Amino acid sequence: MHPSQNPGGGMSVVTDRGVTAASGFRASGITAGFKPSGNPDFALVVNDGPQTAVGAVFTTNRVAAAPVHWSRQVVADGTTRAVVLNSGGANACTGPQGFQTSHTTAELVGAALEIGAGDVVVCSTGLIGEQLPLETVRGGIDPVVAALAEDDAAGLSAATAIMTTDTVPKQAAYVSPEGWSVGGMAKGAGMLAPGLATMLVVITTDAQIPSSVLQRCLEEACSRTFDRADSDGCMSTNDTVVLMGSGASGVAADEPEFLQALTAVCHSLATQLIHDAEGASHDVVITTYNAVSEDDAAEVSRSVARSNLFKTAIFGNDPNWGRVLSAVGTTQAVFDPDELDVTINGVTVCRDGMIGDSRDGVDLASTRQVEVLIDLKVGSHEATIWTNDLTHDYVEENSAYST
Amino acid sequence: MHPSQNPGGGMSVVTDRGVTAASGFRASGITAGFKPSGNPDFALVVNDGPQTAVGAVFTTNRVAAAPVHWSRQVVADGTTRAVVLNSGGANACTGPQGFQTSHTTAELVGAALEIGAGDVVVCSTGLIGEQLPLETVRGGIDPVVAALAEDDAAGLSAATAIMTTDTVPKQAAYVSPEGWSVGGMAKGAGMLAPGLATMLVVITTDAQIPSSVLQRCLEEACSRTFDRADSDGCMSTNDTVVLMGSGASGVAADEPEFLQALTAVCHSLATQLIHDAEGASHDVVITTYNAVSEDDAAEVSRSVARSNLFKTAIFGNDPNWGRVLSAVGTTQAVFDPDELDVTINGVTVCRDGMIGDSRDGVDLASTRQVEVLIDLKVGSHEATIWTNDLTHDYVEENSAYST
Repeated sequence: MHPSQNPGGGMSVVTDRGVTAASGFRASGITAGFKPSGNPDFALVVNDGPQTAVGAVFTTNRVAAAPVHWSRQVVADGTTRAVVLNSGGANACTGPQGFQTSHTTAELVGAALEIGAGDVVVCSTGLIGEQLPLETVRGGIDPVVAALAEDDAAGLSAATAIMTTDTVPKQAAYVSPEGWSVGGMAKGAGMLAPGLATMLVVITTDAQIPSSVLQRCLEEACSRTFDRADSDGCMSTNDTVVLMGSGASGVAADEPEFLQALTAVCHSLATQLIHDAEGASHDVVITTYNAVSEDDAAEVSRSVARSNLFKTAIFGNDPNWGRVLSAVGTTQAVFDPDELDVTINGVTVCRDGMIGDSRDGVDLASTRQVEVLIDLKVGSHEATIWTNDLTHDYVEENSAYST
Repeated sequence: MHPSQNPGGGMSVVTDRGVTAASGFRASGITAGFKPSGNPDFALVVNDGPQTAVGAVFTTNRVAAAPVHWSRQVVADGTTRAVVLNSGGANACTGPQGFQTSHTTAELVGAALEIGAGDVVVCSTGLIGEQLPLETVRGGIDPVVAALAEDDAAGLSAATAIMTTDTVPKQAAYVSPEGWSVGGMAKGAGMLAPGLATMLVVITTDAQIPSSVLQRCLEEACSRTFDRADSDGCMSTNDTVVLMGSGASGVAADEPEFLQALTAVCHSLATQLIHDAEGASHDVVITTYNAVSEDDAAEVSRSVARSNLFKTAIFGNDPNWGRVLSAVGTTQAVFDPDELDVTINGVTVCRDGMIGDSRDGVDLASTRQVEVLIDLKVGSHEATIWTNDLTHDYVEENSAYST
C-alpha cells in the first residue's frame, strides 16, 4: 500500500487570505512598541458574531506562560469575542505579575470593544523571563482597535504583526461551495531565534457550528498537522491555537466536510511554518506507512525527525539511510528490522534492512524538498512528520545572537 | 539538600592504565586494514582465567548490528574468554552475510587461541550498511594474537585500535587495597563523525566474582554512568559494554565495594567520552535534585540535555534559564513550575520559576565546564546527565564529511 501523505484530502486552500476570509470578523495589526525594531507587534482579531463559539488547543508544556493560563480560563465556557496578540515578549516565567499583565490586557481590550474581559484570549510571543511592559500594552489599545477592518489587508496586517523571526506572514483560507469559509494565520514553530520558538495560530470560520464541535474538530486537525510539524523537537511555553466561529454565513456546515477544510487550512499553515524555519536548507517530509497503527507510524516518523545525526546528514545532502534505521530502531513500533525499506526522493536506498539501490541517484544538493518514505510492511496505517535539516544557520541563530 | 553528583563515591581511579591493569588478561591492538588511513583498527582482549566470568550490556536499539546479535549469544552462558574488536566498519544493516562475518571472526580468533568460538565476543564500529571485508579479518588474526601481552603498553594499544574519531584513547583503572583490580577502555559516544557514534567498552577484573554478580553490578554501574552520558540523544546499533572476570587475584571482592569501584571506572570512562566528543566546546553536567525519585531527576536532566535550543545557547555562552525551564516543562516529573530554581556555574539565574540573580555573573566564555543545577524542591533524590553543547563543529562533523 502506498502512502497518501495528504492531510486535508487535497481541498483547495489559498494563502493570500487569512482570518478575515470568514465573514463576521475584523482584524488589525499595528506597532505598539514591544519590539525595539519598530516593526508591527500588536494584533487583534474580533468576532462580531452572531455566534461567539470557540475551540482552543494550548501548549502541554507544564511551564506555561501567563497568557496561556489566562486564555485557558477564557475559552473554558465556550465563548470568545476577541484574540489579542503581541510579539516582542513571551510573558513566560513572569510569576503573578505576568498573569496580572495578561489579565489587564484583556480588560483593556474588553473596555475598548465593550465586551467582557473574560471573552478575550491573550497570546504573547518573544523572550522568556522578562515582564511585558504594561504601558506599551495601554498605548497600543486605541490604535489597534481603531485599525480594525474586515478586508484582506486587515487580516494581513494582523498576520504581519505576530511575526518574530518569521520572514513572511503565513495565511491560509478555504471557501466552501456552500457559502461558509475558514481563514487562518500563524507565526513561529521551532528553529527560530532565541526563546522565540512559539507557535501562535488564529483560525476563523463563519460556518454555524457549536463550540463543542469546533473543539473536537480543532483537536483532530491539530493532531495531524501542527502536532506533526516538528522542527527541532522543542516545545514552547506559549503555543496556542484558537478557532473562533461567528456563524455569520448563516450556513450550518457538515461536520466531516468542515473537519476536512479545517485540516487543510491547518496543513497549509503548518507547512508554511516549516518552510520558513530559519536556518533550514531543506524541508524534510517523513512518512512512515504500512504500520499497524497511525500511532506507530507517527512514532517512527517523529523519531527520525528528531535525530540530530539524520538532520545533519540531510544538511550535508547525504541520503544516509543508516541514520534513519538507527532512529527507527529506538521506537516501540511493530516492525521487523530485516524487512525495513527506506526511500529517499524516489530512490529505495535501503531494502529489507540492507543497502538498496545506489544513492548516487539521490540529488539532495539541488532541491529543498526531501521526501523520506519508511515502509514497515506490517499493516495499513501511515503518518507524516514535517521537519527541517540541522544546519550551521540553526546553530548560529540560536547561539550567536542569544544574549 | 545539596546534590552530590558523584557516582562511584569518589574512589580513586587512574587513567593511564586500562584492561591489563587486572591480572589474568592480555591485550593487543594492531593495524589490520579496515581503516583507509592505516591507523590501528583491530584489538583483542583475552581472559586467561582461572575464571571466565562475564557480564554484558548491549544497545537496546532494535536495529542491532550483526556483532551484537552474535555477542548476545556468546555471553548468554556466563562464559567468555576473549573480546575481539574492530574499528573501520560497523557491520550493521548487513543481513545474514554480516552475521556470518561476525561468526567467522569468532571462529578464527577461537582457532588461534585454542578456545571455542562460542566464548569470543565480537565488537565492530564504523560505517553502517557496508559488509566488513572477511579477508581483512583473516589477515589480522595472526598479528593481533602475536601482539598479545599483559603489560600496560598492550592495554593502551588495544584502547588505541578501537578509536574512530576519538582524539585520545580512553582508559581507567582502580586497584583495591585488598589486592584486586578493575581496568577498562572505551571509545565513542555521540557527536562523532558519520555513522560512527558507537560506544564500545571492555572492562576487566581479577576479583573472584561469579557471572551473575558481574552482570548485576554492570547493569547498575551502566545505569548511572554510560546511560547518563547523553551527547546527542542518538543511540547506536552497535553499543556494547563487556565486563570479564579472571579471578586471578585470588581475592573474593565484597560486592558493594566492587560495585563502587566498577561505577568509578565507568564514570571515569563516560566523562572521558563526553570530554572528547568532537565538535563540542563545553562539557555540560546537568544535575536535578530534590526530586521525588531518581527516575524523575534523570528524566528532567535528560530532557534539558536533549534540548537543541538549550545546547545551542550554551555554545553561545548564554546561561539561558528560560530554555532550561521549557525543557523541564515537557517532563512528567513531580514539580511546581513556580518553585523551580536553576543554578548555572554557581549563579541562581532562575529562582521560584522567575528571573533570579543577574546572569552577568556567569562567565561561560572562559570555561569548558558548565554545571547546571535544577532544584525541584519536592523530594530528596538526584540524578546527573553529562552532555555537550551543540556547535558548528558538530554540524560540520556530521554533514560535510558524511558521504
